[in-house]
Amino acid sequence: MSTVNTKVQRPDKALVDALGRLGVATVHEAQGRKGLLASHLRPIYAGARIAGSAVTVSIPPGDNWMIHVAIEQLHDGDILLVAPTSNCIDGYFGDLLATSAMARGCRGLVIDAGARDVRDLTAMGFPVWSKAVFAQGTVKETLGSVNVPVVCGGEYVRPGDIVLADDDGVCVVRHEEANEVLAKGIEREAREEKVRERLRSGELGLDIYAMRERLAAKGLTYR
Amino acid sequence: MSTVNTKVQRPDKALVDALGRLGVATVHEAQGRKGLLASHLRPIYAGARIAGSAVTVSIPPGDNWMIHVAIEQLHDGDILLVAPTSNCIDGYFGDLLATSAMARGCRGLVIDAGARDVRDLTAMGFPVWSKAVFAQGTVKETLGSVNVPVVCGGEYVRPGDIVLADDDGVCVVRHEEANEVLAKGIEREAREEKVRERLRSGELGLDIYAMRERLAAKGLTYR
Amino acid sequence: MSTVNTKVQRPDKALVDALGRLGVATVHEAQGRKGLLASHLRPIYAGARIAGSAVTVSIPPGDNWMIHVAIEQLHDGDILLVAPTSNCIDGYFGDLLATSAMARGCRGLVIDAGARDVRDLTAMGFPVWSKAVFAQGTVKETLGSVNVPVVCGGEYVRPGDIVLADDDGVCVVRHEEANEVLAKGIEREAREEKVRERLRSGELGLDIYAMRERLAAKGLTYR
Amino acid sequence: MSTVNTKVQRPDKALVDALGRLGVATVHEAQGRKGLLASHLRPIYAGARIAGSAVTVSIPPGDNWMIHVAIEQLHDGDILLVAPTSNCIDGYFGDLLATSAMARGCRGLVIDAGARDVRDLTAMGFPVWSKAVFAQGTVKETLGSVNVPVVCGGEYVRPGDIVLADDDGVCVVRHEEANEVLAKGIEREAREEKVRERLRSGELGLDIYAMRERLAAKGLTYR
Amino acid sequence: MSTVNTKVQRPDKALVDALGRLGVATVHEAQGRKGLLASHLRPIYAGARIAGSAVTVSIPPGDNWMIHVAIEQLHDGDILLVAPTSNCIDGYFGDLLATSAMARGCRGLVIDAGARDVRDLTAMGFPVWSKAVFAQGTVKETLGSVNVPVVCGGEYVRPGDIVLADDDGVCVVRHEEANEVLAKGIEREAREEKVRERLRSGELGLDIYAMRERLAAKGLTYR
Amino acid sequence: MSTVNTKVQRPDKALVDALGRLGVATVHEAQGRKGLLASHLRPIYAGARIAGSAVTVSIPPGDNWMIHVAIEQLHDGDILLVAPTSNCIDGYFGDLLATSAMARGCRGLVIDAGARDVRDLTAMGFPVWSKAVFAQGTVKETLGSVNVPVVCGGEYVRPGDIVLADDDGVCVVRHEEANEVLAKGIEREAREEKVRERLRSGELGLDIYAMRERLAAKGLTYR
Repeated sequence: MSTVNTKVQRPDKALVDALGRLGVATVHEAQGRKGLLASHLRPIYAGARIAGSAVTVSIPPGDNWMIHVAIEQLHDGDILLVAPTSNCIDGYFGDLLATSAMARGCRGLVIDAGARDVRDLTAMGFPVWSKAVFAQGTVKETLGSVNVPVVCGGEYVRPGDIVLADDDGVCVVRHEEANEVLAKGIEREAREEKVRERLRSGELGLDIYAMRERLAAKGLTYR
Repeated sequence: MSTVNTKVQRPDKALVDALGRLGVATVHEAQGRKGLLASHLRPIYAGARIAGSAVTVSIPPGDNWMIHVAIEQLHDGDILLVAPTSNCIDGYFGDLLATSAMARGCRGLVIDAGARDVRDLTAMGFPVWSKAVFAQGTVKETLGSVNVPVVCGGEYVRPGDIVLADDDGVCVVRHEEANEVLAKGIEREAREEKVRERLRSGELGLDIYAMRERLAAKGLTYR
Repeated sequence: MSTVNTKVQRPDKALVDALGRLGVATVHEAQGRKGLLASHLRPIYAGARIAGSAVTVSIPPGDNWMIHVAIEQLHDGDILLVAPTSNCIDGYFGDLLATSAMARGCRGLVIDAGARDVRDLTAMGFPVWSKAVFAQGTVKETLGSVNVPVVCGGEYVRPGDIVLADDDGVCVVRHEEANEVLAKGIEREAREEKVRERLRSGELGLDIYAMRERLAAKGLTYR
Repeated sequence: MSTVNTKVQRPDKALVDALGRLGVATVHEAQGRKGLLASHLRPIYAGARIAGSAVTVSIPPGDNWMIHVAIEQLHDGDILLVAPTSNCIDGYFGDLLATSAMARGCRGLVIDAGARDVRDLTAMGFPVWSKAVFAQGTVKETLGSVNVPVVCGGEYVRPGDIVLADDDGVCVVRHEEANEVLAKGIEREAREEKVRERLRSGELGLDIYAMRERLAAKGLTYR
Repeated sequence: MSTVNTKVQRPDKALVDALGRLGVATVHEAQGRKGLLASHLRPIYAGARIAGSAVTVSIPPGDNWMIHVAIEQLHDGDILLVAPTSNCIDGYFGDLLATSAMARGCRGLVIDAGARDVRDLTAMGFPVWSKAVFAQGTVKETLGSVNVPVVCGGEYVRPGDIVLADDDGVCVVRHEEANEVLAKGIEREAREEKVRERLRSGELGLDIYAMRERLAAKGLTYR
Repeated sequence: MSTVNTKVQRPDKALVDALGRLGVATVHEAQGRKGLLASHLRPIYAGARIAGSAVTVSIPPGDNWMIHVAIEQLHDGDILLVAPTSNCIDGYFGDLLATSAMARGCRGLVIDAGARDVRDLTAMGFPVWSKAVFAQGTVKETLGSVNVPVVCGGEYVRPGDIVLADDDGVCVVRHEEANEVLAKGIEREAREEKVRERLRSGELGLDIYAMRERLAAKGLTYR
């Protein structure tokens, strides 16, 4: 039952990059507050913002063999997304794997487990979102699968779905919904830019969003 | 039972600023090792140190409506302190709310839940101490209260209490005790400066604090 | 039963420093994937990498008295390693203790509890790996022991064992195994450097490590 | 600053007992969904349901001295409520303290830390709600306070407040609100009993509470 | 985007019941070690073992409105499976909802959040697997969806999938794979029964499974 | 480096059984408050109390092969104690392994990971202390070691050390200290029995232990 799907359809790169520019929080809102991976997935260094097509890996605890298999499946612009089949914080991924992934155009790693060599990864500019930083080594004994649907950080991710990651966390966009999400995200950003200006000048959200009446109707009292 | 208290008495600003210069660890000691909020409240970026008068918010899980209400109650020099009524890590607060809070002179946010847009918040220099960084959006359906006593990070905080926050965490000083705490804190700092000098030159705490006799009396043996 | 062992045999400094240059992940692998302390021990700032001889401290919860005792036992090149006898995140250690430890040549602190004054510690360049950053103060009432074997972060550490710490975590090397570990670590590093070159040029780990046949034998299928 | 308040005003026992019969979930709702202590406070055995007047204890980590002091302050019908000043799971309380507490009419213990001898406590029928079961012993070196306001399980509790505990957790009722809460609780229970009958016979909450129109208005669609 | 799917195809009841008799651990193994929900989903009382067709609910944090909607969709033999859209331990479900669910033939509840009234639920014999027991009340303000695919306890579950739960946890079987899983499970159980007999009589797994040679080949040494 | 030590010296059985009758809390105190394993090791059912000689197992994450090896090393009266080399909650152990272990006279299992088939284990009367109950299956691919020193639940345990476990947790007694610990434990129990009588009759610990003077000297005040 261990398989590698070699025929993943990737989303359009311009679309991916446009979503990436919007960032996780905006895209998450634009698609109706869904698609976020769990908050325990944190960046190993601040400031990175990436988007790409998911190459997914389902992998046993304490065994990183399938990551080597997955790297061959990486295309330029992909993001590697690794989900262990049971709870594990071992350091599956370090600077050698990152060197190999970068050589294939991989934009970063999301792993619901541990990473290591983070000083080197930071120096190389290879961004990682992980559940832990931990030097604990792994073995190469048991198979898993590449490019199958997985649950990662509590969210269902299919190969070829669009993954976004920045300091706020990680978000997945279904490839079939990406165009609509992008349009809504751009709209939202424009709307927010206007609100931002008004807030900066001292106007209140209570007035901009006309909340006072509804608050009073719900029973809010001032004293 | 949802109320907004509009008449909070603020502590003297010079007093607040003087406490702020001492920092969390010193003030916590100066007031007899009390007043610390839980260690899970961590800064979104390193190096910030703030002090201010608390505007408190009691808020439902997954619903940030009352933060909009609270912002109107912010005066120059205040700190917004938000406590959900049940365990929640959603991203209640982002760059738009920060823009609005800054426009009113707010010095920062302490929230026993999640924050988002942390890249923007960092760029804006708006410091936040939170339980999580998480893009998860919230709704605006249910009321809470502003400027009522709350428990935040396991500590009781009243509106108008002085809140301090830095890399070591968050601490509250009762406004009625602030003068005395400040005096003790300044004394402590002076005392520590002298000890620091002696330690730097190689003297031991064992001798400076005359601990050897008491250790021996308790039964410590060297071999 | 509270004792201070004053006669710890230290490992050779050149050996310690050579191990330190290899870093935690490499040394952990070189000694057969053992010796790692738990992943909850995190550095208070990024980028530090230290190695030294362990001065161990077994200490009660919420009581830092024995750290004062331990500091007198520090030699140039030592690392202070503190393990509470029961679960505790209080801030046992701050800038005064660090000043004193630095004056004695201590290279850093590993503590399975909390540290505070982290802004000062960062400015001083005194690296700390801890379970928490927390300003919570401690008392000086109950004894413990210095330079006895302890379990710290789930790993058994004896005084005079070599402790390594960097961004990937903390690792212990038995002093009697250090020469062999160093030799294996240097070999490993050399081997990895060659692999790194080949990966950078686009070769795959699957080929470099000749994994394809074994994967097929285990039943991996491509579709 | 370590004090024992010997003059706590207790609530009326009939009132306390009537609240106790309603149980935690009903009382929590009756008072507007407030007053719950954190869900990590779990009973050491199933089935107990108690109510009583709080004797509060603020206590250092790893030190149970003040519990001996608190026991003298217990009156018939009281509940002992213990809050450490910093995070601790040590076994502060075992069968000897329970024997003493029972001799004074204490109805049970709520402790935001650990308990031990739980086999004996169960056999004695002395109910405990705790954060952990753990044999870890404590010392008797440092003072705390008895019958001062504390935060326990994230909730503010004053001496003489009414504490309820059952399998659903622990709840506090302010003594000055107890009469009103009781009235509302009894009303609620009566109302629920009627609803329970209708639900048992197959009617739906959607109809009993007339939710269908509001759901449709919010946009719920059936397909 | 809030929808209720009213046309879920249920699996055959005899099939469901046969899987239920095998239990979670056996079925999990029989389907290739997949399908387990997270270990934090624990039964509120020991000894229950259920199987049924999933009625899934995607629900906001702190808001149990959609459970009322879901109950109408329950058929005889179903299991209610509730997944909040963000991390929440509130007590969404108590004895009134259980009364209603039982009236419709529901066999139990799996909820990645909290339950309450557990004393009543136990007395009623309505089994619940939850992340927490907590009396914390919820509101009825925000929609979700019923009978849509959800991730619950880190596992993807579709309406009409078969859910099994017992003291070992919760497992999902895809309805399209159920026949094959059942066959393999029965085989496995028969095989295990034979092994159990041999182990009981003192034979070793090392011999029954012929492991000694492979262990030696891997390098295991006895001394 | 994977070895099985077949020549473990067991402690005297009468000694082990006498310690077992004292229970975990008493023995822990009698040996100077040391030797406790972490509080996350909880019994799968209440009421069991065992003592035995440790057969230790160091085992990889997600791989239970070495437990089969360890079972052959079990003697009558032993306790199996399993420690993974990295954090893991998989269900390493179920009713088949328990059947085999019981056939060899094993008194129970302590495992810093998961167990499964707990309904069967309970029915068989085979007690287990574990970190989790979880059906997650494991593989048989990677070696570990049997009867080597391990750290389990944060405590160092050597083969042949005496392990005690009951509802309060798990404790280890060094075999070379067992006689002395037993003597102290029996003394302690006798002393406690007398105190228990006095407490039951209403005397206070404050008086029995003559604490009042020392409390006053430390500054405790009554108001």
